[in-house]
Amino acid sequence: MELYGYWRSSCSYRVRIALHWKGIPFTHRGVHLVKDGGQQHAQDYRDLNPMRQVPCLIHQGRAIGQSMAIIEYLETVHPKPPLFPPSPLMAAQVRQICETINAGIQPLQNLSVLQHMKGELNFDDDAVQTWVRHWIGRGFTALESMLTQTAGTYCLGDAITAADAFLVPQVYNAARFQLAMTAYPRITAIHAACMSLPAFQEAAPDRQPDAPENS
Amino acid sequence: MELYGYWRSSCSYRVRIALHWKGIPFTHRGVHLVKDGGQQHAQDYRDLNPMRQVPCLIHQGRAIGQSMAIIEYLETVHPKPPLFPPSPLMAAQVRQICETINAGIQPLQNLSVLQHMKGELNFDDDAVQTWVRHWIGRGFTALESMLTQTAGTYCLGDAITAADAFLVPQVYNAARFQLAMTAYPRITAIHAACMSLPAFQEAAPDRQPDAPENS
Repeated sequence: MELYGYWRSSCSYRVRIALHWKGIPFTHRGVHLVKDGGQQHAQDYRDLNPMRQVPCLIHQGRAIGQSMAIIEYLETVHPKPPLFPPSPLMAAQVRQICETINAGIQPLQNLSVLQHMKGELNFDDDAVQTWVRHWIGRGFTALESMLTQTAGTYCLGDAITAADAFLVPQVYNAARFQLAMTAYPRITAIHAACMSLPAFQEAAPDRQPDAPENS
Repeated sequence: MELYGYWRSSCSYRVRIALHWKGIPFTHRGVHLVKDGGQQHAQDYRDLNPMRQVPCLIHQGRAIGQSMAIIEYLETVHPKPPLFPPSPLMAAQVRQICETINAGIQPLQNLSVLQHMKGELNFDDDAVQTWVRHWIGRGFTALESMLTQTAGTYCLGDAITAADAFLVPQVYNAARFQLAMTAYPRITAIHAACMSLPAFQEAAPDRQPDAPENS
């Protein structure tokens, strides 16, 4: 498998966690989201992923975009170790946590939105940071409440699931945008527990080949 | 099953399509997103869905939020007729289309974001409409390109899939925000084909019990 991604992209990070957790070998293909006006906009990349975003997985000559679609695909073609529990209701809880991040938080702070706010709407850096912290904070408040029902060591009891692969990169983004985490003790504890595991460490942004040396 | 939703919510509309397509009887529970400051913010609803959004499905006494999580759940507990193809690669294409809408378009135009832009950031109606059209247009351009690879009568060949249950409500939103559809002929044709089917007609906003009489 080949993974087109970017070291600091939280959506790429989710997929890297899933690949490392399942022990699937893959080749990292760096797509620099800022250099050259953004390599994701180049025609050869748009042919792979018309949405002009990372990640994009290549397998058997086919390109799959969208981190959630990729992780569901990996679960189907490489089911062990699983990232979704066998119980339909528990799997739904995992997907609800994933989507709260995937559809409820990250889209409001992804690069194309922040570039649009700065470039087209003349938001300054402070206004953009305030916007980002608002939406991550709103989502984390909801997640903290959901995790009251579901969490053990990890998001769903004491086994790693896809929910953890979404939560950890979102906490990384929260730190980038300097969100205070004191109101989210469960999220903080789950993040710390995950980061003690090799699969999460190997997937971390600063461990990727396209990360700058001083990251 | 009970579905907490709102007639005009595109995310509720997706789940209604899936329920009608699968022939699953359900009770509609209206959550008025505007009246009383938004009934989704009331404590009894927050206890069901801490994200304070619709839809929310109740089954076997458990609440499931997030439309994608709900539709994956319905596919598991009620697999026929299917909304995902058996081929893992084709299922990934379906999920990529779903997520392009679910994570790539709708989050940028949902009610909480537009209320925040008006209430906190002092955007006027024109600026909000321009914002919404920008993000739907950007996503539809990508979708139109993806559908070149996948579409027949519907998003994936000639069988209804979850991708159609996401596409049709997003076209409904595009019309609400007066996006010109001339650049999206495949999306327009798929929408028309879907709307000839009873399951899509029954799920339409103006057919819901909480729709105002003149909608």
